[in-house]
Amino acid sequence: MTAVGDAPRTFTGWVGVTNRRITLVTESAADAEAFRAEHPDVREIDCRGRLLMPGLVNTHCHAAMTLQRSYADDISLMAWLNDYIWPFESKQTPDEVVLGLTLGVVEMLLGGITSFVDMYYFEDRCVAPVEQLGIRAVLGCNFFDSNIDEVFPQIERAVEQASAGSGRVRIAVAPHSPYTVSPENLLRGKALADRFDLPLMTHIAETRDEMRIVRERYGCTPVEHLDRLGLLDSRCIGAHCVHVTDSDIATLAARGVTVSHNPQSNMKISSGVAPVEKFRAAGAVVTLGTDGTCSNNDLDLFEELRTATFLQKSATGDPTALPACEALRMATANGARAMGYADGELGVIREGALADLIVVDLQKPHLQPIHNLVSNIVYCGKAADVDTVMVDGRILVENRRLAGVDLPALYDAVGRAVRRITTGK
Amino acid sequence: MTAVGDAPRTFTGWVGVTNRRITLVTESAADAEAFRAEHPDVREIDCRGRLLMPGLVNTHCHAAMTLQRSYADDISLMAWLNDYIWPFESKQTPDEVVLGLTLGVVEMLLGGITSFVDMYYFEDRCVAPVEQLGIRAVLGCNFFDSNIDEVFPQIERAVEQASAGSGRVRIAVAPHSPYTVSPENLLRGKALADRFDLPLMTHIAETRDEMRIVRERYGCTPVEHLDRLGLLDSRCIGAHCVHVTDSDIATLAARGVTVSHNPQSNMKISSGVAPVEKFRAAGAVVTLGTDGTCSNNDLDLFEELRTATFLQKSATGDPTALPACEALRMATANGARAMGYADGELGVIREGALADLIVVDLQKPHLQPIHNLVSNIVYCGKAADVDTVMVDGRILVENRRLAGVDLPALYDAVGRAVRRITTGK
Repeated sequence: MTAVGDAPRTFTGWVGVTNRRITLVTESAADAEAFRAEHPDVREIDCRGRLLMPGLVNTHCHAAMTLQRSYADDISLMAWLNDYIWPFESKQTPDEVVLGLTLGVVEMLLGGITSFVDMYYFEDRCVAPVEQLGIRAVLGCNFFDSNIDEVFPQIERAVEQASAGSGRVRIAVAPHSPYTVSPENLLRGKALADRFDLPLMTHIAETRDEMRIVRERYGCTPVEHLDRLGLLDSRCIGAHCVHVTDSDIATLAARGVTVSHNPQSNMKISSGVAPVEKFRAAGAVVTLGTDGTCSNNDLDLFEELRTATFLQKSATGDPTALPACEALRMATANGARAMGYADGELGVIREGALADLIVVDLQKPHLQPIHNLVSNIVYCGKAADVDTVMVDGRILVENRRLAGVDLPALYDAVGRAVRRITTGK
Repeated sequence: MTAVGDAPRTFTGWVGVTNRRITLVTESAADAEAFRAEHPDVREIDCRGRLLMPGLVNTHCHAAMTLQRSYADDISLMAWLNDYIWPFESKQTPDEVVLGLTLGVVEMLLGGITSFVDMYYFEDRCVAPVEQLGIRAVLGCNFFDSNIDEVFPQIERAVEQASAGSGRVRIAVAPHSPYTVSPENLLRGKALADRFDLPLMTHIAETRDEMRIVRERYGCTPVEHLDRLGLLDSRCIGAHCVHVTDSDIATLAARGVTVSHNPQSNMKISSGVAPVEKFRAAGAVVTLGTDGTCSNNDLDLFEELRTATFLQKSATGDPTALPACEALRMATANGARAMGYADGELGVIREGALADLIVVDLQKPHLQPIHNLVSNIVYCGKAADVDTVMVDGRILVENRRLAGVDLPALYDAVGRAVRRITTGK
């Protein structure tokens, strides 16, 4: 068994899990034997020829948008929103949102994502299904000025449900963005987050249009605007952060904001290139997200890992930019911090950490030979190489099969839902 | 059964293959019944819930470099070449090159690549193994000024072997580049290609350094240099073509040169962004390649499809740039033309075309729902979704298993070879 820790160090040894946590990490056969003796009922998984590593953390997505996967591609942003996305969303029921979220979670789990940060509607309806599916999540309740009074009671309900659950599901307050939510409502969101001790997430500086609108309205950048309102702190997750000045970068780093970098989405909808290397140099915590399946079009963090490195190397002209090991840290330990976990508690293989682990099958032509395991994972690893997924000490995927979900029935239900939404039939 | 033609039109119907060619494409059950009656021994494959499409064509790779996969990443170009790649290559034997090529072909076939254009050493030793593996190939015999007198006899031998074979393997003359091969030797290469009626392939305008060197030596761009020497015509494949002027683009289009765009390699080694949209506007034939596994690090054309569209959208700032259907054409019909096949002969589903076909399993969470099949394939499709691969009417991969190759033994042999090369043991 070989493991990638946050160093990222690789080693051959044993990892033991009891209850929800990693309680043994050792290269000593004697330690492993002692663990076996102490836990005679423990189930052993032979990982020879495979890699045990921390599960991946997707820090920005709109999971329910799987319903709109490939619904509107290769068109301009405004036509995309006005003619496709918004009309579609206005027609879907809460049950259909739960269905889309379920498909998204299934896709993520099968691809080695053990935690995700979501941002969508009807998140109060999603707490129970997410608990049932077994993944770890921060569910961000998305609001605009137009629906804030509907969403706030949902947030309160969601918090209540989550606090009665396993602890794997947390709730966040998620104003859509500084250009679509008024300063007054951003402040109401922040007050609600503080009242329930919740993280706050929002899209920040995603597009050039956003820069122009915020500049016209408030005479500053989106980051300056949010900072003046007091929204930026270590409980804040900012998705995208593409169009930022050097001063914005310093501000985001100083406030401890987590940046969720979504390279494939940024490329596909021509948003620009986030200055990840500048963020890292400034000491900001950068993480990785897939964004929604309308703008990607899948929920595959292995691809984001690779694209993040490729895009920084391409945009900076420096082939040493964002090395593989740093991308891996973004997708694991840094992501865990965005989720609100303390250092060493999640996203690492360390005694005491929560047992969110995945096993990658290395016996694939594209993963041979093995000169450098981290390079192989980041530059060649695929979602389909993950054969086992454990969250909170519980095995959810084994031999690429997700227990407890009838996939053909799910695809049928999703097909019926999108037909109803798009054709009324 | 649903198929993507070069339109790309999708339809539900039947495709019949006899001998090496597609001899039936129909939506009529009666036609299918007549075909069955005429060919009572035909084996039927039920593709319901799956997609039948043309196999993918990888127009630029160095397949044997799988041995160097992840051997040297995240370092500068000159250190990469001087300290890693060239010392490694100087130590490998022809048998080890064949082993690396075998691993590369296995990876490509399992990922739905049915044809590839290679460029490496000892290609005369690779003809028989490639015939045996069943893939279609153009094997380009790579030479520099330093080894031209060794390589030319290899080219003659390779031509002889290929002409005695199935017809699936063709040979090409492959001078490394306009900055590493003298004008005199480029002309010798062109004369040899003309003598045997072979395609000629070379790297063109890959890096800024190449631009500078060619400008200093010859006072012009790499494209102008090659054009003056008479190397540019419809039998020429130019890999990369990143640093080109508008006039270069017009020249490449006018001469009918096939451009092999390698987006992931260009990004990873910070080469720049090839102006694919300008090439397309100028009427040039653009195709897709993976490049070698040192600079990618896999041979996955589904990823190149996606990255090609993302990169053009990102670099041009236009989300409508390089739509999914055009990327798919690059990876199929255009690639076939680069291989030297006439329009309609390969890379399409059409009666009379060679039967290089793949079947993609659509019953995967990341491929559901299906609003748009082409978008799903280009933006979400994975190499691992390919379950069946046919080349020249012969099924090579079925249920994701490649017949006739012992994968564990291959991985072992590759592991031993790279250990010997890197440690001498």
